[in-house]
Amino acid sequence: MKFTIKKEILLEALNKVSKAISTKNVIPVLAGIKFNLTKKRLTLTASDNDITIETYIDCNNEEIINIKQEGSIIIQGKYILDIVRKLPDNYINIEVVDELKILIYTENSEFNLNGISEKEYPTIELTESKNYIELSPETLKEIVNQTAFATSLDENKAILNGINFNISGDILECNATDSYRLARKIVKLETAASENQNIVIPSRNIVEFTRIIDDSEEKIAIHIFNNKILFKYQNLSFQSRLINGTYPNTSNLLPKESLVKIHFNINEFYDVVDRVSILTSDKDKNVVTLESNGKQVLMKSSSAEIGRVEEKMNVEKDNDMDIKISFSAKYMMEALKSFSTKTVDLYFVGEIKPILLRSSEDESLTQLVLPIRTY
Amino acid sequence: MKFTIKKEILLEALNKVSKAISTKNVIPVLAGIKFNLTKKRLTLTASDNDITIETYIDCNNEEIINIKQEGSIIIQGKYILDIVRKLPDNYINIEVVDELKILIYTENSEFNLNGISEKEYPTIELTESKNYIELSPETLKEIVNQTAFATSLDENKAILNGINFNISGDILECNATDSYRLARKIVKLETAASENQNIVIPSRNIVEFTRIIDDSEEKIAIHIFNNKILFKYQNLSFQSRLINGTYPNTSNLLPKESLVKIHFNINEFYDVVDRVSILTSDKDKNVVTLESNGKQVLMKSSSAEIGRVEEKMNVEKDNDMDIKISFSAKYMMEALKSFSTKTVDLYFVGEIKPILLRSSEDESLTQLVLPIRTY
Repeated sequence: MKFTIKKEILLEALNKVSKAISTKNVIPVLAGIKFNLTKKRLTLTASDNDITIETYIDCNNEEIINIKQEGSIIIQGKYILDIVRKLPDNYINIEVVDELKILIYTENSEFNLNGISEKEYPTIELTESKNYIELSPETLKEIVNQTAFATSLDENKAILNGINFNISGDILECNATDSYRLARKIVKLETAASENQNIVIPSRNIVEFTRIIDDSEEKIAIHIFNNKILFKYQNLSFQSRLINGTYPNTSNLLPKESLVKIHFNINEFYDVVDRVSILTSDKDKNVVTLESNGKQVLMKSSSAEIGRVEEKMNVEKDNDMDIKISFSAKYMMEALKSFSTKTVDLYFVGEIKPILLRSSEDESLTQLVLPIRTY
Repeated sequence: MKFTIKKEILLEALNKVSKAISTKNVIPVLAGIKFNLTKKRLTLTASDNDITIETYIDCNNEEIINIKQEGSIIIQGKYILDIVRKLPDNYINIEVVDELKILIYTENSEFNLNGISEKEYPTIELTESKNYIELSPETLKEIVNQTAFATSLDENKAILNGINFNISGDILECNATDSYRLARKIVKLETAASENQNIVIPSRNIVEFTRIIDDSEEKIAIHIFNNKILFKYQNLSFQSRLINGTYPNTSNLLPKESLVKIHFNINEFYDVVDRVSILTSDKDKNVVTLESNGKQVLMKSSSAEIGRVEEKMNVEKDNDMDIKISFSAKYMMEALKSFSTKTVDLYFVGEIKPILLRSSEDESLTQLVLPIRTY
């Protein structure tokens, strides 16, 4: 392998794949990035067994020049990234000498790294499926931003560590829950899926994918298999394992009717909940109490040692029913933040029934926050 | 105590004193901020026994209004800071009711906090000395930025955890060392001190002080006592304990003459050392080797497992002597970064002798980096 490459282009590609470099170092070769150079393109691959990221740079322009020899080698990911980032030159020369020595050099700098034979790299299939769905980067980011926060971090609830993608015809329903709240986003696909699917994608992995993609008009192709999912976007392939198991049916959690609906300005309500939670503690789930009284809502919290707080707000209600209910300020604030609208309606069914959040300005999103008994 | 205060003014004062709130909570009252209101001013005090910060707000303007009752009380620091930061109102009302209940209220919000009697607060003397020295905020910040990084973090070397201030007439000599390097800054005082002093100020504390002061033309008055130091600036008093013991005499470490002097552009040299250190590890003190060869300097490092690196630079030397010496890249980079000049001269005395850094553009600063034996 011997070639010269534009620094910025290589750095961009390394930044993308390095997100999959294994930091646990159980298998040393997975701490490396696989470089594979042909006359046509340079392909970089990294994998930690949980996700695999592959990207390529085409050779038919000014970005890769002086290709003297094709070949493959594994370069230690941490070092190559640091070296390329810190070299001041526009072009960098990379050459394999003595089979497993990698020479990275510019006018004044010369790095000589120990490489690993590509034979030691695991075979990773990044095959496409005949049937796939397509989403714009903007839509996928929106799904992730509006649901991922509600997934569980508890390793004993593996199935809840992911976001559920439930595809039926041209409807994609995404669910996330940690059993104390639920986030649901419904998206209409431009082209219906040829096969219905019900899968669970590890939340951490899909969040990582949305972080490394930009916001072009181009679509992301999503290929779904039994135990893995492959996202293809521009010159990037991002593959993740799926979580095994059956995702709980969350639809029966959504109340069909409500006793009273209260209309809130999101920013105002968020700030009130934030202030009222100052005296609460994480340990006690940041419990705050909402109490409606005619056209006024009182938000309260109290702690015997610290003190108590009360805020009042004027709101719109759809009838004269009054409600008193307690919930986690943290969960309510995260649910409120997920809306990109100005206002939100809270539907109350009763003191010990889930609170439903929906906005008439955007009906694709539903948030559910479970109440907390305070007596 | 009963008054109304402009939110922004109170927040600024709370931000300053809160740096001294004890987070260890050994003595509960030290987790609080002492509020003391007279007709003339509101004084806030916080202390963690290591530092004490006091600031005041004058009542003779629009900042404090409606003073109905003077008084004193201790308010829990963490909560009052959060409450004032998050209240949206321009003015905040504060009132003590039932002796130890603190009411903090605005139009829509009402906080009711449990306070602590001021009788439980320790008596802290913030007396001034007749003899003090004066420094501009700019000069004190420069001293701290150019020396504090070289102090030791090792708790077993208590005396080296501080910055040594050695005052003799109108000369202030500041030293910091962790025994592997030395930073020395010399400042000429506008007014000579009436008494010579040789003290050690805890590095963490003086760094904290420079962070909470702005950059006005006004001078900082520095009052030195046997076991404490008081900084007075604008309406702020900042007191720190001093470290007991005799600071080592570091002057004999500075070489009087050198074998060869090499002139470097600081940014260029910094970047080369940074790149050459990529393959080194913290654990091994990031050792790199400098080798001069005529008008060229080679910087090298190597690791059996990872690989090796070599960079070359063209430099100016004062004679034909060549030198080969190894040192910690981290320490060299921190020493280089402390200069605000464009270039620096490195003076070499021998392979196992300290390297002296000085700039002809600013002779007030001296850095010393000890070499590391590599064989």
